[in-house]
Amino acid sequence: MADRRRSWWGWGWEDQALTEEQTAKLASSLSGRFGIALEPRPAPTLDAAALAAPRVELPPPLAALASVDPHDRAGHAYGRSYRDVVRACAGSFPNPPDAVVRPTTEADVVAVLDWASDAGVAVLPYGGGSSVVGGVEYRGEGGFGAWVSLDLTRLDRVMEIDRTSRAARIQAGALGPVLEDQLRPHDLTLRHFPQSFEFSTLGGWLATRSGGHYATVYTHIDDMVESMRVVTPAGISESRRLPGSGAGPSPDRLFLGSEGAFGVITEAWMRLQDRPRFKASAGVRFHDYAAGVEAVRALSQAALFPTNCRLLDATEASMSAGVTDGRSVLIVGFESADHPVDAWMARALECCRDHGGEVPETVDQGRGGAVGAWRNAFLRAPYTRDALIRMSMVVETFETACTWDRFPSMHAAVIAAATDAIEAVCGFGLVTCRFTHVYPDGPAPYFSVFAPGRAGSEVAMWDEIKAAVSEVLEREGATITHHHAVGRDHDPWYRRQRPELHGRALAATKRALDPAGILNPGVIAPL
Amino acid sequence: MADRRRSWWGWGWEDQALTEEQTAKLASSLSGRFGIALEPRPAPTLDAAALAAPRVELPPPLAALASVDPHDRAGHAYGRSYRDVVRACAGSFPNPPDAVVRPTTEADVVAVLDWASDAGVAVLPYGGGSSVVGGVEYRGEGGFGAWVSLDLTRLDRVMEIDRTSRAARIQAGALGPVLEDQLRPHDLTLRHFPQSFEFSTLGGWLATRSGGHYATVYTHIDDMVESMRVVTPAGISESRRLPGSGAGPSPDRLFLGSEGAFGVITEAWMRLQDRPRFKASAGVRFHDYAAGVEAVRALSQAALFPTNCRLLDATEASMSAGVTDGRSVLIVGFESADHPVDAWMARALECCRDHGGEVPETVDQGRGGAVGAWRNAFLRAPYTRDALIRMSMVVETFETACTWDRFPSMHAAVIAAATDAIEAVCGFGLVTCRFTHVYPDGPAPYFSVFAPGRAGSEVAMWDEIKAAVSEVLEREGATITHHHAVGRDHDPWYRRQRPELHGRALAATKRALDPAGILNPGVIAPL
Repeated sequence: MADRRRSWWGWGWEDQALTEEQTAKLASSLSGRFGIALEPRPAPTLDAAALAAPRVELPPPLAALASVDPHDRAGHAYGRSYRDVVRACAGSFPNPPDAVVRPTTEADVVAVLDWASDAGVAVLPYGGGSSVVGGVEYRGEGGFGAWVSLDLTRLDRVMEIDRTSRAARIQAGALGPVLEDQLRPHDLTLRHFPQSFEFSTLGGWLATRSGGHYATVYTHIDDMVESMRVVTPAGISESRRLPGSGAGPSPDRLFLGSEGAFGVITEAWMRLQDRPRFKASAGVRFHDYAAGVEAVRALSQAALFPTNCRLLDATEASMSAGVTDGRSVLIVGFESADHPVDAWMARALECCRDHGGEVPETVDQGRGGAVGAWRNAFLRAPYTRDALIRMSMVVETFETACTWDRFPSMHAAVIAAATDAIEAVCGFGLVTCRFTHVYPDGPAPYFSVFAPGRAGSEVAMWDEIKAAVSEVLEREGATITHHHAVGRDHDPWYRRQRPELHGRALAATKRALDPAGILNPGVIAPL
Repeated sequence: MADRRRSWWGWGWEDQALTEEQTAKLASSLSGRFGIALEPRPAPTLDAAALAAPRVELPPPLAALASVDPHDRAGHAYGRSYRDVVRACAGSFPNPPDAVVRPTTEADVVAVLDWASDAGVAVLPYGGGSSVVGGVEYRGEGGFGAWVSLDLTRLDRVMEIDRTSRAARIQAGALGPVLEDQLRPHDLTLRHFPQSFEFSTLGGWLATRSGGHYATVYTHIDDMVESMRVVTPAGISESRRLPGSGAGPSPDRLFLGSEGAFGVITEAWMRLQDRPRFKASAGVRFHDYAAGVEAVRALSQAALFPTNCRLLDATEASMSAGVTDGRSVLIVGFESADHPVDAWMARALECCRDHGGEVPETVDQGRGGAVGAWRNAFLRAPYTRDALIRMSMVVETFETACTWDRFPSMHAAVIAAATDAIEAVCGFGLVTCRFTHVYPDGPAPYFSVFAPGRAGSEVAMWDEIKAAVSEVLEREGATITHHHAVGRDHDPWYRRQRPELHGRALAATKRALDPAGILNPGVIAPL
């Protein structure tokens, strides 16, 4: 890992980006498929980014934690959404962080917040930097003249293990693989695997209410938290480690989803799992998408709690599962560290059959086959996205959740609005849908958009599509985000979704915990 | 139901209280068992309560909703904890509500809060009145010269059903049976069955983070909420109905556990269940309590999600399950509306066997036998408690939760402290323990105390025992309450448990939502 460097403009590791050869091959294949001439631009260079000089200097000893290296500053200027990578690719960095500060102790975090509160400098907490909603990019809210990106990845240790209760105290700056590597010797795992797993931290997951790979029960990281420790400008908050409590409103739920606006999460006691020994997975095909939806609804209401319950519509199935006969595919899976899951899977497949699903003759018992292939494609997808950006493609996702009664109408309206917007903006393109998580009362659908763009207009083109679908989500009573968080990009719709009085409560809380308003200004709490 | 009247001094229905004959029989049986002379006092009379005249009059049209009837005022002066019933029995009502106000519409609730904010009158929201923590009893906090008990039980309708998503919009004043009666024709059920089920409301459950009969997964009512509507003095807050969301800190979690301090919950969309068709239950015996604890830990970490997982220690087993050979008993049960639960039960019993449990040869498939008997005794217990209070017995419960690693030490310390305190205060008595809910990372133990008291000193005697055990819970890192709420009785320990900054955030929220501070003053939010 010592040689590896994170990309300053794109997803993940520099050395994992598509090679020039792979990029050219992709361009040629897509050109053929869509009948358009796709010409990848060269990958961007840091020199072209031309960052303005830092406007603030940290006092010693904090200066020792700060970097003004252009690779750091450019790399921390944005998250890694489509519009972030487009802008970075174009060398557009009008407001990069004035410094990237990397605390190595909690006392460092306290010192940075004290200094910033006094100096009137905005502080944007930064975990893995994989935000896709403008969560780590300062846009001038509150009028601060300078800002620092507070990179927490040096606070990355597992501090304590409680094998009996299956829990660990983990520093919040630990990236997914970093914390899993430290848990593995104890035969424990957090098993929270968002797509960003390699490039996102525990603290980031908590601050954004991240969704992991569990399709049911443990969908959001929220439910895996025993307690949290948070440094706010007003002091340090630490909740008591408990399996459950009914003592007042949950202190942790105040910080879960606060996106760095109330404080910097420095550690948390997390509930862990034993490593699964039993696994089963199956792909069920449906001629009729609506029947597939009904099957998933029945499954989600049967209290079988599948680990995986991913319904791909026909377009998604063709794009990512190689099912090109127009059928939808449901990937249903169970895992357990304790018991064979045959009875669970048998009943799940029975449910699917009852709803017209074509059930395979054998069940996949591991990581092989279609499931493994899907997982690898899933983890590689953002690198491919970056290559497509070099061809001016519009490639982005959005996600939501709604109750089952509203899903058919919401789904139809979103697909229609996306299709119309894509046609109006891009001429043609695709929109696909899959479920990432399901609940007894509704699914969390995830949409992907794929269309040709025009060089120089990509951000505006995507923003137009995104606004069109976000209006539909709002109108249909769905949430503006199930697990991508609010950040800055979702804020206009978040404000309409949130009860106005809740906004007032959040503003009051913000004033109590962050009196100078330096923390991620404009995010979550109204200014 | 038309003829039935709630007891103004004790639990539940007047006509369900133990008869004089039953009371005398109980006294004689206990006298024999404990070698003391128990002499029941007569049941209290309302005349003796001598309530002071109301200090405030509601203006028309609100006056039409208000009652100053002594039965109402005395009945709403306290919750129904041991110390509440002792005081009511003694005719001690130094500060009863000046009126009991029963809104019939949400607009009535708004009007009451508007009037009270202007007039400087405290308002204590009141559901079924079964608080055991002083949650509905005004003790002068904030210095209000008058107070009204806002009885919400006329807001008791199921307003809307969504069969597809299995959810309903329910007015918060609906008592358990009232809402279940309205759901039954739709073949749906909330299945939230706290011991107080008949005498507590949906709004009360939400405001206090009530625990139901599910031992795992859906332990607290919190997880069954899709959205809530809350009338605050600053306006009405309504969250969006969603199966899951990651858009900012959860607005509902702010009100869950707020115990009426931020607003009056008027309705909620609740997640429902299908009625179970498959049930299985078994009683497993353990010679060694510690082995029983380990069995439950293994079960709770196996993701089998039993509906029931109640470990009774030997004293509890002898008191409430008729197991008098010194063994502990684990009642483990599964239920499902979808599938036979044999595979689940088989694995659970295997877990128990692996930990030295004596597993029965046959599994109970319904409500009969020991399980049904236990349930009836459970629901009758508070009536028996009231009869014991007439004999000056000290009979009360307390509950908590902690992680598995701390449980053995916490359990031993609590039993020791309770035993010592009982001995010091009462001479002798019993303390028992059972688990009500279990989590992968720890149990929620429930303790019962049973000892002879001295007429006139009961409250002081119990308070001394309660303080002793609460100090232990605090010291052992357990919660002061898992599902009984904080109210006024738990406040000193709640303050020590809650992060100080969370207290500041709650105070700021309180100022934003209830500027005049009229709502349940002194509870949850620091003054």
